[in-house]
Amino acid sequence: MDTAELRALVENITARPGHMSAMGTRVIAVEPGHVHLAVDRRPDLLQFSGHFHGGVIAALADHAAGGAVTTALPAGRIAVTIDLHVNFLAPANGAVLNAKARAVQAGSTIGVAQVDLTTSVDGTEQMCAVALATLRVVEIKSAVKSGS
Amino acid sequence: MDTAELRALVENITARPGHMSAMGTRVIAVEPGHVHLAVDRRPDLLQFSGHFHGGVIAALADHAAGGAVTTALPAGRIAVTIDLHVNFLAPANGAVLNAKARAVQAGSTIGVAQVDLTTSVDGTEQMCAVALATLRVVEIKSAVKSGS
Amino acid sequence: MDTAELRALVENITARPGHMSAMGTRVIAVEPGHVHLAVDRRPDLLQFSGHFHGGVIAALADHAAGGAVTTALPAGRIAVTIDLHVNFLAPANGAVLNAKARAVQAGSTIGVAQVDLTTSVDGTEQMCAVALATLRVVEIKSAVKSGS
Amino acid sequence: MDTAELRALVENITARPGHMSAMGTRVIAVEPGHVHLAVDRRPDLLQFSGHFHGGVIAALADHAAGGAVTTALPAGRIAVTIDLHVNFLAPANGAVLNAKARAVQAGSTIGVAQVDLTTSVDGTEQMCAVALATLRVVEIKSAVKSGS
Repeated sequence: MDTAELRALVENITARPGHMSAMGTRVIAVEPGHVHLAVDRRPDLLQFSGHFHGGVIAALADHAAGGAVTTALPAGRIAVTIDLHVNFLAPANGAVLNAKARAVQAGSTIGVAQVDLTTSVDGTEQMCAVALATLRVVEIKSAVKSGS
Repeated sequence: MDTAELRALVENITARPGHMSAMGTRVIAVEPGHVHLAVDRRPDLLQFSGHFHGGVIAALADHAAGGAVTTALPAGRIAVTIDLHVNFLAPANGAVLNAKARAVQAGSTIGVAQVDLTTSVDGTEQMCAVALATLRVVEIKSAVKSGS
Repeated sequence: MDTAELRALVENITARPGHMSAMGTRVIAVEPGHVHLAVDRRPDLLQFSGHFHGGVIAALADHAAGGAVTTALPAGRIAVTIDLHVNFLAPANGAVLNAKARAVQAGSTIGVAQVDLTTSVDGTEQMCAVALATLRVVEIKSAVKSGS
Repeated sequence: MDTAELRALVENITARPGHMSAMGTRVIAVEPGHVHLAVDRRPDLLQFSGHFHGGVIAALADHAAGGAVTTALPAGRIAVTIDLHVNFLAPANGAVLNAKARAVQAGSTIGVAQVDLTTSVDGTEQMCAVALATLRVVEIKSAVKSGS
């Protein structure tokens, strides 16, 4: 698949009814092995101190990691997260939360992605978390079997 | 604090406007060092295959871990997650997602919690994920500084 | 394989020339899905404060996790660690370091193990670390291809 | 401390009797917030397939992470690992194992480091693992209380 097709694939999966579209996830950029997603600040995405909630950060990291590894795979294969590790570095208290994932492994059965999470505060992008995800590579049909 | 006060503390934090209350998080049980939370299946909490999304599982694990460590601390102190590791074991495709956290460390500066995540399928509770969270222990005022 | 054969398999792998035998790793108990290993305190296994080094704890957790998942698999298959998460809870300053691993998943391609690490101080066993490992399940020949 | 003093600090800690010196750990480079360590292939550091053992990779990542965060702290403070996450990407089957750590957080109580692990195969350096470590920042005296 070329880059336009990869972007269409990530946008299609992101726009499906479910948690990622309900969070208002936007696809900012897609290159083979690289996915950049963003969500805008919204009261239902924050924790009690007014920062993006750790679960929202984890959700965005997870989805970006899946996109980064999937876009590095041959067509017809998709990566699903089997474990996720997130280090929260600073309060994510900006207007936008960004996740930039890159595939560091995209093998026949296992993928790994690193994710940098940033938030924009007064026009400056700040790191708020880093994540590592391990994914399993499967046929796209078996992963999406109950999708619409 | 006695157990009733601890439960009130966890319910109070969970009910505040934000991501956990927006997810419909329910507090099932609270004992010192142990917190059991649940969320009900809802379309905006699922991934594209119809299972609870990994981000929702991570959010619930994170919040339960914070509750478990906080309820094991002296009054006036609260635990905030600094890193979270989640292993996804099986699709979380039941009607309810449960997170049962227990504090395995609740020191003066660091806490650690283990979390079992289960989902009920046809009346049987199944493990769908396990998590480990590392938390930092802070004065309750500094953690809730921008809360209402 | 019966339990005696599983124990022989774990002992055989542990005794091979390499890091685990050089550390003096002893196999304490093996049941399907459960492996208990131990190492004795020795100057070259400690960090600068005189406790077991985090790398020794990680090595023992890794090997115990591999044993726990492998002994839960059909014969001819072995589990190799693809990622390892260790939480260090307390200084491991006893005479013996123990790792007790149990398989929480042993599928056709992926396994997961939880590991409790303890150390004996004045006759009392204390938790010093907890770990979660994710493993890939492979044919035993491909894993041991360069073994003797 | 200037860079020469930071290097002397890391070399001093690495050379103390214990696991890191027993592994033959060499300090390659030290800059504030950055530490590069290496170990040479040796039979007692390998697993049964002849690659560097996961525990050796974890030990080197742990020590490099501690160095990277410590060299980013004010003098008199040291970082001790509280949790470590390692993703094994490829067999570490070269002549040398390298760990290059950089501090991504070095606060008053918590530090975080990312570590790239590589191995040289036929003159080409290959990624074999990536790691994330979370550390606690303490006074140097309390960390080294039982050191010589």
